[in-house]
Amino acid sequence: MKKVKIALLGLGNVAKGVLSIIRENKEQIVKRSGYEVEIAKILVRDVKKDRGVEVPTEILTTSYEEILNDNEIKIVVEVMGGIEPAKEYIIKAMEAKKQIVTANKMLLATCGDEVFEKADEMGVSFQYEASVAGGIPIINGISQSLTANKINTLYGIINGTTNYILSKMELENLNFEDVLKEAQDKGYAEADPTSDIEGYDAQYKLVILSSLAFGTKIKPEHVYREGITKINSIDMEYASSFGMVIKLLAIAKEENGELELRVHPTMIPETHPLANVYDSFNAVFINGNAVGDMMFYGRGAGSLPTGSAVVSDIIWILRNNVEVENMQPVVKNNLWEMNIKDLKDIESRYYLRITVSDKPGVLGQITTIFGANKVSLKSVIQKGVKQEENIDVTLVLITHSTTEGLIMDSIERLYDLKTVKSIDNIIRIEDFR
Amino acid sequence: MKKVKIALLGLGNVAKGVLSIIRENKEQIVKRSGYEVEIAKILVRDVKKDRGVEVPTEILTTSYEEILNDNEIKIVVEVMGGIEPAKEYIIKAMEAKKQIVTANKMLLATCGDEVFEKADEMGVSFQYEASVAGGIPIINGISQSLTANKINTLYGIINGTTNYILSKMELENLNFEDVLKEAQDKGYAEADPTSDIEGYDAQYKLVILSSLAFGTKIKPEHVYREGITKINSIDMEYASSFGMVIKLLAIAKEENGELELRVHPTMIPETHPLANVYDSFNAVFINGNAVGDMMFYGRGAGSLPTGSAVVSDIIWILRNNVEVENMQPVVKNNLWEMNIKDLKDIESRYYLRITVSDKPGVLGQITTIFGANKVSLKSVIQKGVKQEENIDVTLVLITHSTTEGLIMDSIERLYDLKTVKSIDNIIRIEDFR
Repeated sequence: MKKVKIALLGLGNVAKGVLSIIRENKEQIVKRSGYEVEIAKILVRDVKKDRGVEVPTEILTTSYEEILNDNEIKIVVEVMGGIEPAKEYIIKAMEAKKQIVTANKMLLATCGDEVFEKADEMGVSFQYEASVAGGIPIINGISQSLTANKINTLYGIINGTTNYILSKMELENLNFEDVLKEAQDKGYAEADPTSDIEGYDAQYKLVILSSLAFGTKIKPEHVYREGITKINSIDMEYASSFGMVIKLLAIAKEENGELELRVHPTMIPETHPLANVYDSFNAVFINGNAVGDMMFYGRGAGSLPTGSAVVSDIIWILRNNVEVENMQPVVKNNLWEMNIKDLKDIESRYYLRITVSDKPGVLGQITTIFGANKVSLKSVIQKGVKQEENIDVTLVLITHSTTEGLIMDSIERLYDLKTVKSIDNIIRIEDFR
Repeated sequence: MKKVKIALLGLGNVAKGVLSIIRENKEQIVKRSGYEVEIAKILVRDVKKDRGVEVPTEILTTSYEEILNDNEIKIVVEVMGGIEPAKEYIIKAMEAKKQIVTANKMLLATCGDEVFEKADEMGVSFQYEASVAGGIPIINGISQSLTANKINTLYGIINGTTNYILSKMELENLNFEDVLKEAQDKGYAEADPTSDIEGYDAQYKLVILSSLAFGTKIKPEHVYREGITKINSIDMEYASSFGMVIKLLAIAKEENGELELRVHPTMIPETHPLANVYDSFNAVFINGNAVGDMMFYGRGAGSLPTGSAVVSDIIWILRNNVEVENMQPVVKNNLWEMNIKDLKDIESRYYLRITVSDKPGVLGQITTIFGANKVSLKSVIQKGVKQEENIDVTLVLITHSTTEGLIMDSIERLYDLKTVKSIDNIIRIEDFR
């Protein structure tokens, strides 16, 4: 039996999944790759820290040089996360002609180019299936299996924490804060949940997915981002009454060389396949001009699902002969130059929830403002019955398709009306057309 | 710009999709593969036949030798279907060191081994993503992206025609015969629909998927097969009343080296992701011991979706350098030896619809028979109210989990009862546990 030594950089959640799979599925790995895989070294910051995982202490090291200079280590698996020193380590490993597997979305989204170029230059394999949507093979799907297509649209539920929170809010009629608290207690959300709930995590992932899907260079700042903190169980109820659900959607659309990229809470029809993606599951829905509609669904996070992607990448390298150079050309993201659409030009339908004084003529004033901006309203719902003069009531408006610019302008004008007390929420509606 | 010549064997539906994509998405293909693709030859039976597609007549040929002996043709795309002469042509092309792409499920399911071995021997690439589930990248998914897993179960809606028929029956409350007729009129079902409606097509596809997923040799006769012709709109209504829907499911389960393989109409909970796969869409739901639950969803048939898989395979070959040998080792299906579970030993819940004389004691007689076979009943529904003596009534039984053997034995005994007029339908229930 051929043997291969690999090194892990980091011993967090993903690394533990990798270790567990390599032990548990040893037979699968040996038979499918033709190699017995030995974890020869694990880079950690502190060899003494108890990580609740059984690892021989002699393979732990705080010295990256030890890994780099070990010629028997053929594959370096970077699962430490963050940009530095991860990037430096990866580049050095490539220069030492080691093959690389990573799960690092932040690195790829912010300085992927540099790493891709180095892999190309050195002729080493650079695999990163685990960087987006955990165990779901969306990276291979896009960069290998859908290449015959011009991709028109890509919609993703690619953050498990927010999907878990929104699912709980929807199905159990709970408020955001309560569900977040519970998710933190259970370890589903981090102590500092900003990256998830404000949409940064989904933003990074959309950068990676869309640069592959559209073959163009995309930076995080190209993606409009809005989190889920303003979503209220009242909005969930209204959505439901319209036959819709609310999801944090990562959206990429291409038309005539112009790309729109955004991450925000979105109302979608409850009959759409993405609407049935609940809990911490992820899904990516793609429309290509040949393949039509297609969806990938599965566990987007967690130690074992992410480990599944990492170990499958390792097997892929082994199966293709770990000693070979240039085993797979790096997928290029500089094939097309595309403009990024200005947010104000994106088209959508909108849900607006507004608090107004229930005075005669208020509805007329509001609809006049929208009318002046050529925003036509599909429906207007006034909740509650007037019981006395001057009571505040909730008004819910659903617009027909319009642009973000016209909506924002209309909203600015609404604030000028004394009868408008507050704009409580604005949620984009996606019809998948 | 590098140029590559390829040949198509066949000019049917899939070939037309391939031609259309190569024309329509020329820019995508050139940029992503680095090659300009020229269809140099198309093998047809009759060069004069009008196929409703614009092709220069000089590239049509009836002579395979012409393709085989053209050293400039680097890739042979087999989209003629059937076993012979497709197999002979593929083997000869491999011997001539040409790379192969095929969409031929029947060939792969019945004599895949021979072709795999030849590809291995000659060091040529053999790509067949299009053979199962059209544009859905399930072949790459299983054979590349999920290799770290021990696959526990695989469930597929992998025949578009039957899913279209069952969807129409369910959503529009129609009968099988009427929907089949309509589907034939619209060209969704073939004039001879046997291969689809009797489950042969799904059987072949399950052979391919499960031999990859479980790394073992599987033959069509290992798969129990039952079509959808007996499904009645009455069964649909009962299913709905239990919160279930009926799908033609291809099922593969592995436990302790024993595989169960079957294709049959199945009641599944309406909350399961597969339950929402409607019309001609396909989906494959997989549980792996690392990745957990995962689903691939999309267009399983049609000229463009299948063409998408074929052309993506072509691009893959080009990107990996069409001149290289042994560019990708053939995925082995002889890694494990597994027993095929006897049908009588499979475990399931069952739905039974029976017509009985409504005489006193009939329910007692029936439950006694099931009781004697240790089949416990979850619910018994008697439809209709007795209006006179000796009227026939419908009895619907739902069992708890039991074995096929015990159910079949119970049913044999039911026939002995004079009060049992007919066993109208037996449908297995899948709980995905």
